[in-house]
Amino acid sequence: MQLYIDNKNYSSWSMRPWVLMRHFGIPFEEVMVRFDSFEADSAFKATVNAVGPTGKVPLLVDEGFAVWDTLAIAEYLAEKFPTLPLWPVDQRQRARARSLCAEMHSGFGHLRNHCSQNLEASLPEVGARLIAEQPGVVSDLQRLQAMWTEALDQSGGPFLFGSFGITDAYFAPVVGRIRTYALPVSDIVNEYIANVWETPGVEAFVGEALAEKDFREFEEPYRKSAAG
Amino acid sequence: MQLYIDNKNYSSWSMRPWVLMRHFGIPFEEVMVRFDSFEADSAFKATVNAVGPTGKVPLLVDEGFAVWDTLAIAEYLAEKFPTLPLWPVDQRQRARARSLCAEMHSGFGHLRNHCSQNLEASLPEVGARLIAEQPGVVSDLQRLQAMWTEALDQSGGPFLFGSFGITDAYFAPVVGRIRTYALPVSDIVNEYIANVWETPGVEAFVGEALAEKDFREFEEPYRKSAAG
Repeated sequence: MQLYIDNKNYSSWSMRPWVLMRHFGIPFEEVMVRFDSFEADSAFKATVNAVGPTGKVPLLVDEGFAVWDTLAIAEYLAEKFPTLPLWPVDQRQRARARSLCAEMHSGFGHLRNHCSQNLEASLPEVGARLIAEQPGVVSDLQRLQAMWTEALDQSGGPFLFGSFGITDAYFAPVVGRIRTYALPVSDIVNEYIANVWETPGVEAFVGEALAEKDFREFEEPYRKSAAG
Repeated sequence: MQLYIDNKNYSSWSMRPWVLMRHFGIPFEEVMVRFDSFEADSAFKATVNAVGPTGKVPLLVDEGFAVWDTLAIAEYLAEKFPTLPLWPVDQRQRARARSLCAEMHSGFGHLRNHCSQNLEASLPEVGARLIAEQPGVVSDLQRLQAMWTEALDQSGGPFLFGSFGITDAYFAPVVGRIRTYALPVSDIVNEYIANVWETPGVEAFVGEALAEKDFREFEEPYRKSAAG
């Protein structure tokens, strides 16, 4: 299988399936397609359009068959590797895990817009300003904390549904945002964040993101250079 | 099971699981919660927060267990009723169906924003203006048509993956938008639209939407009254 992704430092959607597959030891060939422009005739679009219809990454290609969109990729992997505990085994827990992923998939717009993924950056002063000035960021963070706390309470941790699974991989980029912008969270959530950050898939992804050193102006609303 | 939904005329997210369950004869009790305001202490929020954590509909409650977000509800129903062909039976077709639903779940923002659901309205002149002035609406429509045409080509129709399933229920509100705004589509797509509109679940939902006659100013960017 080939997993087409964008740059690791900035691409939150790419992070999800990469972390999931690496965590569970699912072999894949990474194809990094550096996003160069929004134009229809860009090199990025040409490469991605050759393998799938959306012109976007991530995209999983399994013997020529394209699966796109992180949620569909996750479900495809769960079906292809039924013995791996990608989803919780209990039916209700699995339904709950899917609710959380689907809620993430279409929601948390304020957090996404104001706190774009930037794994190598440290922007606590931006985070403090956002918390003071953007009620949408505050309410997104509130809902996240409530959701995670409830799941951790019920499962007993260390991950949302006990052991690491799709839902944790799904929220790994959010964990990254909370870290980059030093957003204020409870002790329980802080512990969860630390747990996620120490998993092998996340650690590998972050390590490779830090090694990229590919500063891109259009992804950087807050920094003028990699130095800050 | 109870399905909590908002008003039928305007609520595209509510339409998806309602149509799906009605189509497949899955019994449910409809709980209509009229959306009254975005305030945290609104009657809508109070009712919805009593059964689930997101303050949003649709929400499925099965013996007290809440499942939210349309995609998670669809997956829950597919697992609960494994003999019903909610998803395509073939694994690759099922993966493709999930890719389409997930792409819809987080995408098509221009179409959503400019062509809000309004089943009782007929706004061809607004549609014509949007096509002329909003390239984002044009490209969303282009992608939709490409996606539908490819699926219909492969399955032979009359629905995206042969017989009516989750993906068609998922796109039923989009079909409604294309009708309301009379957006220009190919003959193949027009035929698909007609097929979706004649299914029993969609027909029942639209019939009840038309009977509501509940004009709400904040849902009406283009009309001053139900008369136009």
